[in-house]
Amino acid sequence: MDDFSLLPAPSDDDAFHEECGVFGVFGHPDAAALTALGLHALQHRGQEAAGIAAHDGRQFSIERHVGLVGDNFTRKAVIDRLPGVRAIGHNRYSTTGGAGLRNVQPMFAEFAGGGFAVAHNGNLTNAMALKRELQRRGSLFQSTSDTETIIHLIATSNHGRLLDRFIDAIRRIEGAYSLVALSEKKMLGCRDPLGVRPLVLGKLEDAYILASETCALDIIGASYVRDINAGEVVIITDEGIESLYPFERQPSRFCIFEYVYFARPDSAVDGRGVYAVRKRIGQELARESGIDADIVVPVPDSGVPAAIGYAEEAGIPFDLGIIRNHYVGRTFIEPTDAIRHMGVKLKHNANRAILAGKRVILVDDSIVRGTTSMKIVQMVREAGASEVHMRIASPPTTDSCFYGVDTPEKSKLIAAQMTVDEIARYIKADSLAFISIDGLYRAVGEAKRNGEAPQFCDACFTGEYPTRLADYEDRGKVQALPRLAEAS
Amino acid sequence: MDDFSLLPAPSDDDAFHEECGVFGVFGHPDAAALTALGLHALQHRGQEAAGIAAHDGRQFSIERHVGLVGDNFTRKAVIDRLPGVRAIGHNRYSTTGGAGLRNVQPMFAEFAGGGFAVAHNGNLTNAMALKRELQRRGSLFQSTSDTETIIHLIATSNHGRLLDRFIDAIRRIEGAYSLVALSEKKMLGCRDPLGVRPLVLGKLEDAYILASETCALDIIGASYVRDINAGEVVIITDEGIESLYPFERQPSRFCIFEYVYFARPDSAVDGRGVYAVRKRIGQELARESGIDADIVVPVPDSGVPAAIGYAEEAGIPFDLGIIRNHYVGRTFIEPTDAIRHMGVKLKHNANRAILAGKRVILVDDSIVRGTTSMKIVQMVREAGASEVHMRIASPPTTDSCFYGVDTPEKSKLIAAQMTVDEIARYIKADSLAFISIDGLYRAVGEAKRNGEAPQFCDACFTGEYPTRLADYEDRGKVQALPRLAEAS
Amino acid sequence: MDDFSLLPAPSDDDAFHEECGVFGVFGHPDAAALTALGLHALQHRGQEAAGIAAHDGRQFSIERHVGLVGDNFTRKAVIDRLPGVRAIGHNRYSTTGGAGLRNVQPMFAEFAGGGFAVAHNGNLTNAMALKRELQRRGSLFQSTSDTETIIHLIATSNHGRLLDRFIDAIRRIEGAYSLVALSEKKMLGCRDPLGVRPLVLGKLEDAYILASETCALDIIGASYVRDINAGEVVIITDEGIESLYPFERQPSRFCIFEYVYFARPDSAVDGRGVYAVRKRIGQELARESGIDADIVVPVPDSGVPAAIGYAEEAGIPFDLGIIRNHYVGRTFIEPTDAIRHMGVKLKHNANRAILAGKRVILVDDSIVRGTTSMKIVQMVREAGASEVHMRIASPPTTDSCFYGVDTPEKSKLIAAQMTVDEIARYIKADSLAFISIDGLYRAVGEAKRNGEAPQFCDACFTGEYPTRLADYEDRGKVQALPRLAEAS
Amino acid sequence: MDDFSLLPAPSDDDAFHEECGVFGVFGHPDAAALTALGLHALQHRGQEAAGIAAHDGRQFSIERHVGLVGDNFTRKAVIDRLPGVRAIGHNRYSTTGGAGLRNVQPMFAEFAGGGFAVAHNGNLTNAMALKRELQRRGSLFQSTSDTETIIHLIATSNHGRLLDRFIDAIRRIEGAYSLVALSEKKMLGCRDPLGVRPLVLGKLEDAYILASETCALDIIGASYVRDINAGEVVIITDEGIESLYPFERQPSRFCIFEYVYFARPDSAVDGRGVYAVRKRIGQELARESGIDADIVVPVPDSGVPAAIGYAEEAGIPFDLGIIRNHYVGRTFIEPTDAIRHMGVKLKHNANRAILAGKRVILVDDSIVRGTTSMKIVQMVREAGASEVHMRIASPPTTDSCFYGVDTPEKSKLIAAQMTVDEIARYIKADSLAFISIDGLYRAVGEAKRNGEAPQFCDACFTGEYPTRLADYEDRGKVQALPRLAEAS
Repeated sequence: MDDFSLLPAPSDDDAFHEECGVFGVFGHPDAAALTALGLHALQHRGQEAAGIAAHDGRQFSIERHVGLVGDNFTRKAVIDRLPGVRAIGHNRYSTTGGAGLRNVQPMFAEFAGGGFAVAHNGNLTNAMALKRELQRRGSLFQSTSDTETIIHLIATSNHGRLLDRFIDAIRRIEGAYSLVALSEKKMLGCRDPLGVRPLVLGKLEDAYILASETCALDIIGASYVRDINAGEVVIITDEGIESLYPFERQPSRFCIFEYVYFARPDSAVDGRGVYAVRKRIGQELARESGIDADIVVPVPDSGVPAAIGYAEEAGIPFDLGIIRNHYVGRTFIEPTDAIRHMGVKLKHNANRAILAGKRVILVDDSIVRGTTSMKIVQMVREAGASEVHMRIASPPTTDSCFYGVDTPEKSKLIAAQMTVDEIARYIKADSLAFISIDGLYRAVGEAKRNGEAPQFCDACFTGEYPTRLADYEDRGKVQALPRLAEAS
Repeated sequence: MDDFSLLPAPSDDDAFHEECGVFGVFGHPDAAALTALGLHALQHRGQEAAGIAAHDGRQFSIERHVGLVGDNFTRKAVIDRLPGVRAIGHNRYSTTGGAGLRNVQPMFAEFAGGGFAVAHNGNLTNAMALKRELQRRGSLFQSTSDTETIIHLIATSNHGRLLDRFIDAIRRIEGAYSLVALSEKKMLGCRDPLGVRPLVLGKLEDAYILASETCALDIIGASYVRDINAGEVVIITDEGIESLYPFERQPSRFCIFEYVYFARPDSAVDGRGVYAVRKRIGQELARESGIDADIVVPVPDSGVPAAIGYAEEAGIPFDLGIIRNHYVGRTFIEPTDAIRHMGVKLKHNANRAILAGKRVILVDDSIVRGTTSMKIVQMVREAGASEVHMRIASPPTTDSCFYGVDTPEKSKLIAAQMTVDEIARYIKADSLAFISIDGLYRAVGEAKRNGEAPQFCDACFTGEYPTRLADYEDRGKVQALPRLAEAS
Repeated sequence: MDDFSLLPAPSDDDAFHEECGVFGVFGHPDAAALTALGLHALQHRGQEAAGIAAHDGRQFSIERHVGLVGDNFTRKAVIDRLPGVRAIGHNRYSTTGGAGLRNVQPMFAEFAGGGFAVAHNGNLTNAMALKRELQRRGSLFQSTSDTETIIHLIATSNHGRLLDRFIDAIRRIEGAYSLVALSEKKMLGCRDPLGVRPLVLGKLEDAYILASETCALDIIGASYVRDINAGEVVIITDEGIESLYPFERQPSRFCIFEYVYFARPDSAVDGRGVYAVRKRIGQELARESGIDADIVVPVPDSGVPAAIGYAEEAGIPFDLGIIRNHYVGRTFIEPTDAIRHMGVKLKHNANRAILAGKRVILVDDSIVRGTTSMKIVQMVREAGASEVHMRIASPPTTDSCFYGVDTPEKSKLIAAQMTVDEIARYIKADSLAFISIDGLYRAVGEAKRNGEAPQFCDACFTGEYPTRLADYEDRGKVQALPRLAEAS
Repeated sequence: MDDFSLLPAPSDDDAFHEECGVFGVFGHPDAAALTALGLHALQHRGQEAAGIAAHDGRQFSIERHVGLVGDNFTRKAVIDRLPGVRAIGHNRYSTTGGAGLRNVQPMFAEFAGGGFAVAHNGNLTNAMALKRELQRRGSLFQSTSDTETIIHLIATSNHGRLLDRFIDAIRRIEGAYSLVALSEKKMLGCRDPLGVRPLVLGKLEDAYILASETCALDIIGASYVRDINAGEVVIITDEGIESLYPFERQPSRFCIFEYVYFARPDSAVDGRGVYAVRKRIGQELARESGIDADIVVPVPDSGVPAAIGYAEEAGIPFDLGIIRNHYVGRTFIEPTDAIRHMGVKLKHNANRAILAGKRVILVDDSIVRGTTSMKIVQMVREAGASEVHMRIASPPTTDSCFYGVDTPEKSKLIAAQMTVDEIARYIKADSLAFISIDGLYRAVGEAKRNGEAPQFCDACFTGEYPTRLADYEDRGKVQALPRLAEAS
């Protein structure tokens, strides 16, 4: 990927963005503080805003703030406003629904039978259609978030008990979702029938933990129990944990891109260690498209594990030829023209002494629009590299994601518009190679991609979407909806 | 009243507070700026927060801010975010619904048929009952505001056209309300069947204006057309203005306390000039309970007109024996003990040179708890007054208001607990008199109060409420609802 | 004056502004809280910023904030950062020195012999000349405040003891100043040789209090002891109070405009009650330029006492024909054009019912540029007044003040450019009269102005300045100094 | 070092902190914007606050803000307030002088002969003594910064021309300093006689650039010209550049710790590439204290280059066994106890899959107090490492720095209190080795340390301070000075 870090960095125009991370604790006296820690560990899944909902046996408390977890959820005063042994939390990147505190999760509703808070990672592909139907029957929407659609479906369900209403609701939604929810008595965790987004179960003393990735268990010292299964609903109460499978069972289709880029390298998701997969991608890449060179240089930070794997496999020294400035956060938001033109150097600088006169293999995780890759190649060349060969740790990204990843429209994806050779010329690399789709499947431990029944969701590389895309088939209509400009 | 000004001052524990002011413009290029000015003129009706919703023919824009209109709605950047020739606005004092931006009006909803913004002055007396019913059928409430109840009633109405749905909704609500609303094509104005709260119609060039009081017409140079009638709905469109009377007609019961205290002295409400009524109250008071003295001194600022009337009628000099510090705004919010004990002096200081050795008639508009009156009497006496006679420009306040005025519970109202003589002793005045209820009716132009069919709502003086009080008959239940703590 | 209140209101272009109020406490456990209260009572003397310096026997603490006292100095946390039984404080209006926290007082310096904090009301007329001299010898200035000049004079004095250095310093300065200062052991109070600005001494239990006006004694319940004399330095220590007269004695020249406008009506300054003087001005005005009319209407709030005096003397009813909106604070700072054009109505509204068809005498305290008077007259006429006669409670303001009052340059003062008749035509009044200079002197208790040795400073009416104006004689040079743009 | 990154990370208790970075531009139309970029590249040298002073040929403008460069200096509005073709800037870490905007640089003074702005990296060792002397002669200090001492020395110099006064001033100061200054006509750059802190000269078109490190030249595309020499003053004017050597020449003593930790790896300072030095340190370390193991793991980010060097030399695979969370900025400032106890994991997480069952060599740059190292070792062991061997890329840190690095007192430095074996036991490592002092000298290109005349300042490892430490010899007195509590 053009821009990011070992832990993906704050937002950028020429990069993919995950929408969300979720976390939940049931049965620990420091529930809200643990949730803040868990969200901090999951910060790479969404840096725009975060929220925590807690229940103290009597009432719900919610705090939602725009900004980083570390900036908003670490003061004692804030945590003290979230009492109770149960809490759920959410990080978001601002995609569906636009900015503004209205769309920050967890969302909360006061049902006739009590309060309900819910946080969700993913994207529904029939939310718009459902919303129009609900509006026609008198439901009022306060946000543009998918999550609110789920809440209205629960509120208007004909079933009696809350759990039955919840299952009634999720049976009507389509798309990718891993969600955690808190009612007066229960914590719920749930993955969509294909298990596109990750969700793991952990334990800390007697408390149950739900988290998007295992790194969020590590930070609080919780042990990993297992992944929630595709199509599973877990119900956690004071009595323990139960499972329901309300959907027809089918083979799972976990998002393969979580391994390439989204998940933290120290996490295990869907049962595999992320760092090891990335190194193996580098090794496959070296085998598939090796080339003679002097050094292997990662585009930091996200290209590092694949570069280490590549260097090991190829027997070429690994070196930090590009240095990343970590102070580029949500900064330089309104730069002068002078700053704008200097662009990439705010974030990366060539390590001139290392690069001068060398034949360089650059390893990056993906290419989105190509503009960043072009600048990186140019910077490395200006630092004196005699050759620049780009190796990419994913297949060409040819299609948009509708399952919770903020990708540009297909027309903006360079790999949807150009061949690999054309891209190489566009970014001015001496050579360019992407890992093959089978190479990627091998890196995650499969023999090859099963074309009849792919083992993962790889729609961004293949265009084969594993669900209906109801909303996007009549997108024109959707975009014509009047919008409400809101002060926040 | 113990504490306030000619224009009622910012909030205080020992005073009444109006909840709201409303304003609307239909058909002027500066609609939002005019609305900001109108709200500024109505600031005395609610200082906690303000909001404006505008429609530009295509979409709605809303700005809502905690704080004064002048602090939030005067920058060009804010007004520019509210384009269009139609706008409505609202000032609120934070009573029903608690603090937080969630309850700031205008409220907005996206119905299946389009957007709808509404702002309301008053209080519904069956909102809780309606809310429970709506929740049972799946409506989700985001705020604790009466206004949202009205919106859900519209959303769930079985009627087709928005106007029919609106009328269906207001037929189900009880209590006092003057409201303005904006749909995709129309501006609506409406007063409850008894016309408890004020609402006037004005015109500025071709634009129609709705406002709580005429002072808001004056500030923008609009002309006064007429008061909206009790039970009337006016519908303003590009084609002009129409009226509907969806309720059975009945004699109006305008709030008589608007004349005593709430309305600005330079306004006319329900057809009478407020300043003139107040002076006549002072004259009646002088006739009813005159006493020999050297000077008539108002408790500033709200006691001034009645004191002038009293002084004229009694032929005793009027003088400013108490000086008010206008820099007491939303200040001294968390004072030290030293400051707390000095209490009233933050706001009022005795004009010692005027008071020393004098027999003083103090004129105030009302007494709520009596604590401020006691401090004022003491301050005047310490400044050397030889006698202090208190005259009050309203009858004893014996009952709470449920129609949009923030009054203490009955048990906290001193006049509900003590006789006039007891109050005189409590506040340590040499004599105390309130105007009689018939004296007050004379001041507003009636011969006397019609006991069979009172011409005004005077429930705070008589306990005779002109509507059902459904919610307050089972209040215990209402208060037991779990509350959501919300970050704002 | 065109614009202000009984207590002068926040800043406005067409009005005079006092620069400062000072306050000090020596020997009370709540010194900082009392100082905050005192400054609150003196808020009308400066609304831009305020500061408090306290000493706890060991070290100094200082808090300085832009904004109102009530907004910045009432939280326990702030007062707790100002420990000790001694404190001085200061309100400022942002004139000399420009905005920014650098110029907010009290100023503090760490001398070789210990810390020293000083706050000052007035204006030095040779500060620039002294500053240039000090800079040549190596003194570095951090602000553009006169107060810093005094501090450098102390620092560079050849004398040994701090008190001697202080006296050495004040002997070199010229102009008007009332100042309070705090050293490691002493509180000092001092008025310039002519006593142009006020300073009073009070007592609260064993503590000594210094304050610009008596209203600041009243708010804390302190008793008034006496005015500090012109040319007097009082030294307050744990042992008691002493006086020094370091200047050649001369007759005092108190600012007569303090009576007309600056001081609070409930204060006594330089030995006279302000409210009583203002009423007598109104009476003199009625005698000097009476006219047949129906009502006497003050321009609120500052015109009220003179209007009451006028009405009494003339036997014409006093009525509130103009209503003031007290929510106009530091608001509407960046209005839209629509708001700007509506101008005066943000602050004043005509009380139409009172004015219609009446012959009106308007009473205001002064006219600066005339623009506000013109708008007021127009507003009253549009409200239906048949005649509008303007009466002004001060002589024509023909000259700038260099003693601590922010007046426009002479060329901007309408009375320096036009005759009374011309002004009457400019503001479109049917008649206009100012009080005579002798009438003003009679109102303050003199038989008449002594032309040989005027009893007061009245330079703004007569151009007779009682001191040298060293800096202003070579002003061109002063204004050419390079300025430093500073972030605050 | 226990904690930091390839680019040193935001502040932490158990780490060293550089105080400052400086930057200057003379002769470019985008001077202020370039300075902002330069300071951004130097952000690792000080994250607390930043400032820029510009001169447009007529006047100076200054902006100083607490916070990151990227958060405060990138908006057009800010840059537009800094016009001119000349600018200097400064980043600070808040050591000497405490927090508060008063101490943020550049400092500015208005001399009799014109304005002067100065920014400084380093620490004076006789500033206190000079300050006391200056105070005795009447100089008033506004801050506690060394820089102000230099300014007062210039102001009180007996010389005439500003350049002579400047040289007079720097001849009186002792310690380490690299400074940039701007007068009405000149930009000055200067390094102390030993050249302890870095300063380089660059060129961008016709403009001269001064910067602490070359990475700040890279970001703006400037070319590197040379390092400013120890004891050199460069004077840059419209006519070009000149050099003066006002001190007796002596061999330079550049800070060797800049290579170990402070400087950015992509910079060259004092003529050597930083990254290459760090890799050679790792190689030396492998030769000096090699041990059999399975993987070499850096403590990220600062241990990475040495770990790569170690791995290459030792032939053991390099792997990322510890993952750093880059969202830990100035966050978690007031954590709950629950968060505090989880400490290190906020920043680092073990990459369990990589470490399990392995014999691990951990490479870090230094050990300060030892607490962080202990937690890292424990974390790696809990992740399943069978052996943990710690290798440190610097000699034991036994002495405090008085030349601009914020080090704990000697008594808090673990290496001043324990032997290497004791430290190994304290941090619970299976083995521990530091590079030797000669090994470090070899890595920077020397044959060995010259004991008679060390080629670098290495006082933190050897206790041999190259200058007098006047202030620190009578430190008790210094600390007894009364302090002023200041609102900021």
